[in-house]
Amino acid sequence: MNSMNTVITIGRQFGSAGREIGEKVAEYFGIQCLDKELLSRAAKESGFCEEMMANHDEMPTSSFLYNLVMDTYSFGYNASSFVDMPISHKVFLAQFDTIKKIADEGPCIIVGRCADYALSDRKNCVNLFIYADEETKVKRIMEKYDLTEAKAKEMCAKKDKQRQSYYNYYSTKKWGRADSYDLCINSGVLGIDGTVNLIIQYVEDFERKNL
Amino acid sequence: MNSMNTVITIGRQFGSAGREIGEKVAEYFGIQCLDKELLSRAAKESGFCEEMMANHDEMPTSSFLYNLVMDTYSFGYNASSFVDMPISHKVFLAQFDTIKKIADEGPCIIVGRCADYALSDRKNCVNLFIYADEETKVKRIMEKYDLTEAKAKEMCAKKDKQRQSYYNYYSTKKWGRADSYDLCINSGVLGIDGTVNLIIQYVEDFERKNL
Repeated sequence: MNSMNTVITIGRQFGSAGREIGEKVAEYFGIQCLDKELLSRAAKESGFCEEMMANHDEMPTSSFLYNLVMDTYSFGYNASSFVDMPISHKVFLAQFDTIKKIADEGPCIIVGRCADYALSDRKNCVNLFIYADEETKVKRIMEKYDLTEAKAKEMCAKKDKQRQSYYNYYSTKKWGRADSYDLCINSGVLGIDGTVNLIIQYVEDFERKNL
Repeated sequence: MNSMNTVITIGRQFGSAGREIGEKVAEYFGIQCLDKELLSRAAKESGFCEEMMANHDEMPTSSFLYNLVMDTYSFGYNASSFVDMPISHKVFLAQFDTIKKIADEGPCIIVGRCADYALSDRKNCVNLFIYADEETKVKRIMEKYDLTEAKAKEMCAKKDKQRQSYYNYYSTKKWGRADSYDLCINSGVLGIDGTVNLIIQYVEDFERKNL
Protein backbone atom coordinates (compact mmCIF):
# COMPACT_ATOMS: atom_id res chain seq x y z
CA MET A 1 0.00 0.00 0.00
CA ASN A 2 1.37 3.39 -0.94
CA SER A 3 0.42 6.79 0.38
CA MET A 4 -1.30 8.68 -2.41
CA ASN A 5 -3.44 11.74 -2.84
CA THR A 6 -4.97 11.55 -6.31
CA VAL A 7 -8.53 11.03 -7.48
CA ILE A 8 -8.66 8.95 -10.66
CA THR A 9 -11.66 9.09 -12.98
CA ILE A 10 -12.21 6.43 -15.63
CA GLY A 11 -14.31 6.92 -18.73
CA ARG A 12 -14.62 3.65 -20.66
CA GLN A 13 -16.02 1.87 -23.69
CA PHE A 14 -18.27 -1.02 -22.76
CA GLY A 15 -16.32 -4.29 -22.75
CA SER A 16 -12.89 -2.73 -22.41
CA ALA A 17 -12.51 -3.87 -18.76
CA GLY A 18 -12.57 -0.31 -17.39
CA ARG A 19 -14.16 -1.40 -14.14
CA GLU A 20 -11.83 -4.35 -13.57
CA ILE A 21 -8.81 -2.18 -14.31
CA GLY A 22 -10.10 0.49 -11.91
CA GLU A 23 -10.56 -2.11 -9.17
CA LYS A 24 -7.04 -3.46 -9.60
CA VAL A 25 -5.46 0.00 -9.54
CA ALA A 26 -7.54 0.81 -6.44
CA GLU A 27 -6.36 -2.37 -4.75
CA TYR A 28 -2.72 -1.46 -5.42
CA PHE A 29 -3.12 2.00 -3.88
CA GLY A 30 -5.37 0.81 -1.06
CA ILE A 31 -8.25 3.10 -2.02
CA GLN A 32 -11.88 2.55 -3.00
CA CYS A 33 -13.16 2.17 -6.53
CA LEU A 34 -16.72 3.33 -7.12
CA ASP A 35 -18.79 2.27 -10.06
CA LYS A 36 -22.38 1.23 -9.51
CA GLU A 37 -21.67 1.60 -5.77
CA LEU A 38 -21.87 5.33 -6.44
CA LEU A 39 -25.56 4.91 -7.00
CA SER A 40 -26.25 3.50 -3.54
CA ARG A 41 -24.48 6.36 -1.91
CA ALA A 42 -26.07 9.00 -4.14
CA ALA A 43 -29.47 7.49 -3.51
CA LYS A 44 -28.93 7.53 0.22
CA GLU A 45 -27.76 11.14 0.22
CA SER A 46 -30.38 12.50 -2.16
CA GLY A 47 -33.37 10.61 -0.84
CA PHE A 48 -34.17 9.15 -4.25
CA CYS A 49 -34.90 5.48 -4.37
CA GLU A 50 -32.03 3.36 -5.63
CA GLU A 51 -34.03 1.56 -8.30
CA MET A 52 -35.14 4.83 -9.86
CA MET A 53 -31.56 6.07 -9.88
CA ALA A 54 -30.37 2.87 -11.53
CA ASN A 55 -32.94 3.34 -14.31
CA HIS A 56 -31.52 6.75 -15.14
CA ASP A 57 -27.88 5.89 -14.50
CA GLU A 58 -25.74 6.99 -17.44
CA MET A 59 -28.83 7.08 -19.67
CA PRO A 60 -29.41 9.90 -22.14
CA THR A 61 -32.22 12.14 -21.03
CA SER A 62 -35.38 11.35 -22.94
CA SER A 63 -37.24 14.60 -22.67
CA PHE A 64 -36.32 16.24 -25.96
CA LEU A 65 -38.71 19.17 -25.74
CA TYR A 66 -37.72 19.78 -22.15
CA ASN A 67 -34.07 19.82 -23.23
CA LEU A 68 -34.79 22.40 -25.90
CA VAL A 69 -36.25 24.68 -23.26
CA MET A 70 -33.53 23.95 -20.70
CA ASP A 71 -30.77 24.66 -23.20
CA THR A 72 -31.86 28.29 -23.36
CA TYR A 73 -30.92 28.61 -19.71
CA SER A 74 -27.45 27.93 -18.35
CA PHE A 75 -27.42 24.56 -16.69
CA GLY A 76 -26.85 24.93 -13.00
CA TYR A 77 -27.95 23.76 -9.59
CA ASN A 78 -30.75 26.26 -8.97
CA ALA A 79 -33.00 25.39 -6.08
CA SER A 80 -36.04 27.14 -7.50
CA SER A 81 -35.86 25.19 -10.75
CA PHE A 82 -35.07 21.86 -9.12
CA VAL A 83 -38.70 20.94 -8.64
CA ASP A 84 -39.43 21.42 -12.35
CA MET A 85 -36.41 19.44 -13.51
CA PRO A 86 -36.98 16.09 -15.17
CA ILE A 87 -35.96 13.06 -13.08
CA SER A 88 -32.93 12.38 -15.27
CA HIS A 89 -31.47 15.78 -14.43
CA LYS A 90 -32.09 15.27 -10.73
CA VAL A 91 -30.36 11.91 -10.85
CA PHE A 92 -27.41 13.48 -12.61
CA LEU A 93 -27.15 16.26 -10.02
CA ALA A 94 -27.44 13.83 -7.14
CA GLN A 95 -24.54 11.81 -8.52
CA PHE A 96 -22.62 14.99 -9.35
CA ASP A 97 -22.86 16.11 -5.73
CA THR A 98 -21.97 12.69 -4.37
CA ILE A 99 -18.91 12.53 -6.62
CA LYS A 100 -17.67 15.86 -5.25
CA LYS A 101 -18.25 14.73 -1.66
CA ILE A 102 -16.41 11.47 -2.24
CA ALA A 103 -13.44 13.30 -3.79
CA ASP A 104 -13.36 15.65 -0.80
CA GLU A 105 -12.97 12.66 1.51
CA GLY A 106 -9.73 11.50 -0.09
CA PRO A 107 -8.09 9.56 -2.93
CA CYS A 108 -10.36 7.16 -4.80
CA ILE A 109 -11.24 5.87 -8.26
CA ILE A 110 -14.57 6.77 -9.85
CA VAL A 111 -15.80 4.96 -12.94
CA GLY A 112 -18.09 6.73 -15.40
CA ARG A 113 -20.87 9.21 -14.61
CA CYS A 114 -19.05 12.29 -15.92
CA ALA A 115 -16.84 12.22 -12.83
CA ASP A 116 -14.09 14.08 -14.69
CA TYR A 117 -16.55 16.88 -15.38
CA ALA A 118 -17.78 16.92 -11.77
CA LEU A 119 -14.15 17.29 -10.61
CA SER A 120 -12.86 19.61 -13.33
CA ASP A 121 -11.89 22.25 -10.74
CA ARG A 122 -9.59 19.86 -8.87
CA LYS A 123 -5.83 19.83 -9.34
CA ASN A 124 -5.29 16.40 -7.81
CA CYS A 125 -7.42 14.62 -10.39
CA VAL A 126 -6.30 12.36 -13.24
CA ASN A 127 -8.80 11.55 -16.00
CA LEU A 128 -8.42 8.30 -17.92
CA PHE A 129 -10.28 6.82 -20.89
CA ILE A 130 -10.10 3.08 -21.50
CA TYR A 131 -11.12 1.42 -24.76
CA ALA A 132 -10.31 -1.62 -26.89
CA ASP A 133 -10.70 -3.02 -30.40
CA GLU A 134 -14.19 -4.24 -31.24
CA GLU A 135 -13.05 -7.87 -31.45
CA THR A 136 -11.60 -7.76 -27.93
CA LYS A 137 -14.69 -6.12 -26.44
CA VAL A 138 -17.20 -8.37 -28.16
CA LYS A 139 -15.30 -11.50 -27.06
CA ARG A 140 -15.24 -10.29 -23.46
CA ILE A 141 -18.97 -9.46 -23.44
CA MET A 142 -19.88 -12.75 -25.14
CA GLU A 143 -18.12 -14.62 -22.32
CA LYS A 144 -19.30 -12.38 -19.49
CA TYR A 145 -22.99 -12.34 -20.41
CA ASP A 146 -23.13 -15.62 -22.38
CA LEU A 147 -24.30 -13.97 -25.60
CA THR A 148 -23.95 -14.67 -29.29
CA GLU A 149 -21.46 -12.54 -31.19
CA ALA A 150 -24.25 -10.54 -32.80
CA LYS A 151 -25.97 -9.85 -29.48
CA ALA A 152 -22.71 -8.89 -27.80
CA LYS A 153 -21.86 -6.51 -30.66
CA GLU A 154 -25.28 -4.93 -30.35
CA MET A 155 -24.94 -4.55 -26.59
CA CYS A 156 -21.52 -2.87 -26.93
CA ALA A 157 -22.80 -0.42 -29.52
CA LYS A 158 -25.91 0.39 -27.51
CA LYS A 159 -24.10 0.91 -24.21
CA ASP A 160 -21.47 3.15 -25.78
CA LYS A 161 -24.14 5.20 -27.49
CA GLN A 162 -25.90 5.73 -24.15
CA ARG A 163 -22.66 6.71 -22.44
CA GLN A 164 -21.71 9.05 -25.24
CA SER A 165 -25.12 10.78 -25.17
CA TYR A 166 -24.99 11.10 -21.39
CA TYR A 167 -21.46 12.51 -21.35
CA ASN A 168 -21.96 14.87 -24.28
CA TYR A 169 -25.22 16.16 -22.83
CA TYR A 170 -24.05 16.87 -19.29
CA SER A 171 -20.37 17.74 -19.74
CA THR A 172 -18.73 20.44 -21.84
CA LYS A 173 -16.50 17.92 -23.60
CA LYS A 174 -16.86 15.12 -26.12
CA TRP A 175 -16.90 11.47 -25.07
CA GLY A 176 -14.13 9.37 -26.58
CA ARG A 177 -12.11 12.33 -27.90
CA ALA A 178 -8.51 11.95 -26.75
CA ASP A 179 -8.22 15.54 -25.52
CA SER A 180 -11.22 15.18 -23.19
CA TYR A 181 -8.90 13.14 -20.93
CA ASP A 182 -5.32 13.12 -19.59
CA LEU A 183 -4.46 9.59 -20.72
CA CYS A 184 -6.29 7.18 -23.05
CA ILE A 185 -5.35 3.52 -23.21
CA ASN A 186 -6.32 0.67 -25.51
CA SER A 187 -6.53 -2.05 -22.84
CA GLY A 188 -6.16 -4.81 -25.44
CA VAL A 189 -2.58 -3.84 -26.31
CA LEU A 190 -0.88 -4.54 -22.98
CA GLY A 191 -3.78 -6.56 -21.55
CA ILE A 192 -5.53 -5.85 -18.24
CA ASP A 193 -2.52 -6.28 -15.95
CA GLY A 194 -0.23 -4.38 -18.32
CA THR A 195 -2.73 -1.52 -18.44
CA VAL A 196 -3.02 -1.53 -14.64
CA ASN A 197 0.80 -1.26 -14.35
CA LEU A 198 0.92 1.59 -16.83
CA ILE A 199 -1.75 3.53 -14.92
CA ILE A 200 0.06 2.96 -11.60
CA GLN A 201 3.27 4.27 -13.19
CA TYR A 202 1.41 7.29 -14.57
CA VAL A 203 -0.25 8.19 -11.28
CA GLU A 204 3.02 7.82 -9.35
CA ASP A 205 4.79 10.09 -11.88
CA PHE A 206 1.89 12.55 -11.61
CA GLU A 207 2.16 12.66 -7.82
CA ARG A 208 5.94 13.08 -7.88
CA LYS A 209 5.58 16.01 -10.27
CA ASN A 210 2.87 17.69 -8.23
CA LEU A 211 4.39 17.27 -4.77
CA MET B 1 20.91 2.01 -25.99
CA ASN B 2 18.51 -0.88 -25.86
CA SER B 3 17.76 -3.49 -28.48
CA MET B 4 14.22 -2.91 -29.72
CA ASN B 5 12.06 -3.94 -32.60
CA THR B 6 9.06 -1.62 -32.62
CA VAL B 7 7.94 1.08 -35.02
CA ILE B 8 6.31 3.97 -33.19
CA THR B 9 3.95 6.36 -34.98
CA ILE B 10 3.04 9.70 -33.47
CA GLY B 11 -0.07 11.69 -34.37
CA ARG B 12 -0.05 15.07 -32.65
CA GLN B 13 -1.83 18.36 -32.07
CA PHE B 14 0.22 21.36 -33.16
CA GLY B 15 2.13 22.82 -30.21
CA SER B 16 1.97 19.71 -28.02
CA ALA B 17 5.69 18.92 -28.53
CA GLY B 18 5.00 15.71 -30.47
CA ARG B 19 8.14 16.06 -32.51
CA GLU B 20 10.41 16.85 -29.57
CA ILE B 21 8.97 13.94 -27.61
CA GLY B 22 9.50 11.64 -30.61
CA GLU B 23 13.11 12.75 -30.93
CA LYS B 24 13.83 12.11 -27.24
CA VAL B 25 12.26 8.66 -27.30
CA ALA B 26 14.24 7.89 -30.47
CA GLU B 27 17.45 9.02 -28.79
CA TYR B 28 16.80 6.69 -25.84
CA PHE B 29 16.27 3.68 -28.09
CA GLY B 30 19.04 4.63 -30.51
CA ILE B 31 16.71 4.76 -33.51
CA GLN B 32 15.81 7.46 -36.05
CA CYS B 33 12.86 9.81 -35.74
CA LEU B 34 11.38 11.02 -39.01
CA ASP B 35 9.21 14.07 -39.32
CA LYS B 36 9.85 16.50 -42.14
CA GLU B 37 12.90 14.37 -42.99
CA LEU B 38 10.38 11.92 -44.41
CA LEU B 39 9.72 14.39 -47.18
CA SER B 40 13.31 14.43 -48.42
CA ARG B 41 13.41 10.68 -48.62
CA ALA B 42 9.98 10.41 -50.23
CA ALA B 43 10.94 13.07 -52.74
CA LYS B 44 14.15 11.25 -53.62
CA GLU B 45 12.38 7.93 -54.04
CA SER B 46 9.39 9.21 -55.96
CA GLY B 47 11.17 11.65 -58.22
CA PHE B 48 8.94 14.53 -57.14
CA CYS B 49 10.71 17.74 -56.26
CA GLU B 50 11.05 18.34 -52.55
CA GLU B 51 9.50 21.83 -52.61
CA MET B 52 6.37 20.56 -54.30
CA MET B 53 6.10 17.76 -51.74
CA ALA B 54 6.46 20.22 -48.89
CA ASN B 55 3.61 22.30 -50.29
CA HIS B 56 1.28 19.32 -50.16
CA ASP B 57 2.65 17.80 -46.96
CA GLU B 58 -0.20 17.03 -44.53
CA MET B 59 -2.45 19.46 -46.43
CA PRO B 60 -6.08 18.62 -47.17
CA THR B 61 -6.61 17.93 -50.82
CA SER B 62 -8.17 20.92 -52.53
CA SER B 63 -9.84 19.29 -55.46
CA PHE B 64 -13.41 18.91 -54.23
CA LEU B 65 -14.99 17.78 -57.48
CA TYR B 66 -12.17 15.32 -58.06
CA ASN B 67 -12.75 13.92 -54.59
CA LEU B 68 -16.43 13.41 -55.29
CA VAL B 69 -15.51 11.34 -58.31
CA MET B 70 -12.68 9.48 -56.58
CA ASP B 71 -14.87 8.57 -53.61
CA THR B 72 -17.01 6.43 -55.87
CA TYR B 73 -14.01 4.23 -56.50
CA SER B 74 -12.09 2.45 -53.73
CA PHE B 75 -8.92 4.31 -53.05
CA GLY B 76 -5.90 2.30 -54.00
CA TYR B 77 -2.57 2.37 -55.71
CA ASN B 78 -3.61 1.71 -59.27
CA ALA B 79 -0.95 2.37 -61.88
CA SER B 80 -3.36 3.21 -64.66
CA SER B 81 -5.10 5.90 -62.64
CA PHE B 82 -1.91 7.34 -61.23
CA VAL B 83 -1.41 9.72 -64.13
CA ASP B 84 -4.88 11.22 -63.65
CA MET B 85 -4.51 11.63 -59.91
CA PRO B 86 -4.22 15.13 -58.47
CA ILE B 87 -0.77 16.05 -57.16
CA SER B 88 -1.93 15.86 -53.54
CA HIS B 89 -2.83 12.20 -53.95
CA LYS B 90 0.51 11.43 -55.58
CA VAL B 91 2.35 13.12 -52.71
CA PHE B 92 0.34 11.10 -50.21
CA LEU B 93 1.11 7.84 -52.01
CA ALA B 94 4.81 8.68 -52.29
CA GLN B 95 4.98 9.24 -48.53
CA PHE B 96 2.81 6.19 -47.90
CA ASP B 97 5.29 4.01 -49.81
CA THR B 98 8.31 5.58 -48.16
CA ILE B 99 6.79 5.00 -44.71
CA LYS B 100 6.37 1.30 -45.47
CA LYS B 101 9.94 1.03 -46.77
CA ILE B 102 11.34 2.77 -43.71
CA ALA B 103 9.39 0.47 -41.37
CA ASP B 104 10.71 -2.54 -43.29
CA GLU B 105 14.26 -1.40 -42.58
CA GLY B 106 13.86 -1.59 -38.81
CA PRO B 107 12.61 0.15 -35.65
CA CYS B 108 12.03 3.90 -35.97
CA ILE B 109 9.67 6.69 -34.98
CA ILE B 110 7.52 8.39 -37.62
CA VAL B 111 5.70 11.62 -36.86
CA GLY B 112 2.46 12.46 -38.66
CA ARG B 113 1.53 11.72 -42.27
CA CYS B 114 -1.00 8.95 -41.50
CA ALA B 115 1.90 6.64 -40.67
CA ASP B 116 -0.34 4.53 -38.44
CA TYR B 117 -2.64 3.98 -41.39
CA ALA B 118 0.27 3.14 -43.70
CA LEU B 119 1.46 0.52 -41.19
CA SER B 120 -1.93 -0.82 -40.07
CA ASP B 121 -1.01 -4.35 -41.19
CA ARG B 122 2.08 -4.49 -38.94
CA LYS B 123 2.08 -6.26 -35.60
CA ASN B 124 5.23 -4.53 -34.30
CA CYS B 125 3.74 -1.05 -34.50
CA VAL B 126 2.60 1.20 -31.66
CA ASN B 127 0.42 4.22 -32.48
CA LEU B 128 0.52 7.25 -30.19
CA PHE B 129 -1.43 10.52 -30.16
CA ILE B 130 0.02 13.49 -28.30
CA TYR B 131 -2.00 16.59 -27.38
CA ALA B 132 -2.14 19.33 -24.74
CA ASP B 133 -4.44 21.98 -23.28
CA GLU B 134 -4.88 25.04 -25.46
CA GLU B 135 -3.06 27.28 -22.96
CA THR B 136 0.02 25.04 -23.02
CA LYS B 137 0.13 24.81 -26.81
CA VAL B 138 -0.43 28.52 -27.43
CA LYS B 139 2.32 29.44 -24.94
CA ARG B 140 4.75 27.06 -26.64
CA ILE B 141 3.96 28.37 -30.13
CA MET B 142 4.14 32.00 -29.02
CA GLU B 143 7.68 31.37 -27.77
CA LYS B 144 8.78 29.16 -30.62
CA TYR B 145 7.61 31.42 -33.44
CA ASP B 146 7.62 34.77 -31.59
CA LEU B 147 3.90 35.39 -32.12
CA THR B 148 1.17 37.22 -30.26
CA GLU B 149 -1.29 35.07 -28.34
CA ALA B 150 -3.97 35.66 -30.94
CA LYS B 151 -1.70 34.69 -33.83
CA ALA B 152 -0.44 31.61 -32.03
CA LYS B 153 -4.02 30.52 -31.25
CA GLU B 154 -4.95 30.96 -34.89
CA MET B 155 -1.90 28.99 -36.06
CA CYS B 156 -2.71 26.09 -33.72
CA ALA B 157 -6.32 25.93 -34.87
CA LYS B 158 -5.37 26.14 -38.54
CA LYS B 159 -2.63 23.49 -38.36
CA ASP B 160 -4.86 21.05 -36.48
CA LYS B 161 -7.66 21.57 -38.96
CA GLN B 162 -5.29 20.74 -41.82
CA ARG B 163 -3.99 17.64 -40.08
CA GLN B 164 -7.50 16.50 -39.23
CA SER B 165 -8.69 16.93 -42.83
CA TYR B 166 -5.63 15.11 -44.16
CA TYR B 167 -5.95 12.19 -41.74
CA ASN B 168 -9.73 11.85 -42.08
CA TYR B 169 -9.50 11.98 -45.85
CA TYR B 170 -6.76 9.41 -46.40
CA SER B 171 -7.19 7.05 -43.47
CA THR B 172 -10.18 4.98 -42.41
CA LYS B 173 -10.14 6.42 -38.91
CA LYS B 174 -10.87 9.74 -37.22
CA TRP B 175 -8.08 12.09 -36.17
CA GLY B 176 -8.00 12.85 -32.45
CA ARG B 177 -10.44 10.09 -31.45
CA ALA B 178 -8.88 8.05 -28.66
CA ASP B 179 -9.66 4.70 -30.26
CA SER B 180 -7.82 5.60 -33.47
CA TYR B 181 -4.59 5.04 -31.49
CA ASP B 182 -3.08 2.66 -28.90
CA LEU B 183 -2.12 5.34 -26.37
CA CYS B 184 -3.02 9.04 -26.16
CA ILE B 185 -1.17 11.38 -23.84
CA ASN B 186 -1.74 14.96 -22.73
CA SER B 187 1.91 16.06 -22.76
CA GLY B 188 1.18 18.98 -20.45
CA VAL B 189 0.31 16.75 -17.49
CA LEU B 190 3.69 15.07 -16.93
CA GLY B 191 5.65 17.53 -19.08
CA ILE B 192 7.88 16.57 -22.00
CA ASP B 193 10.36 14.43 -20.08
CA GLY B 194 7.61 12.75 -18.07
CA THR B 195 5.78 11.93 -21.29
CA VAL B 196 8.98 10.58 -22.84
CA ASN B 197 9.48 8.29 -19.84
CA LEU B 198 5.91 7.04 -20.00
CA ILE B 199 6.23 6.21 -23.68
CA ILE B 200 9.53 4.38 -23.09
CA GLN B 201 7.85 2.35 -20.33
CA TYR B 202 4.92 1.59 -22.64
CA VAL B 203 7.07 0.46 -25.54
CA GLU B 204 9.23 -1.73 -23.30
CA ASP B 205 6.10 -3.36 -21.82
CA PHE B 206 4.75 -3.82 -25.35
CA GLU B 207 7.92 -5.55 -26.49
CA ARG B 208 8.06 -7.82 -23.44
CA LYS B 209 4.48 -8.86 -24.06
CA ASN B 210 5.05 -9.56 -27.72
CA LEU B 211 8.38 -11.40 -27.52
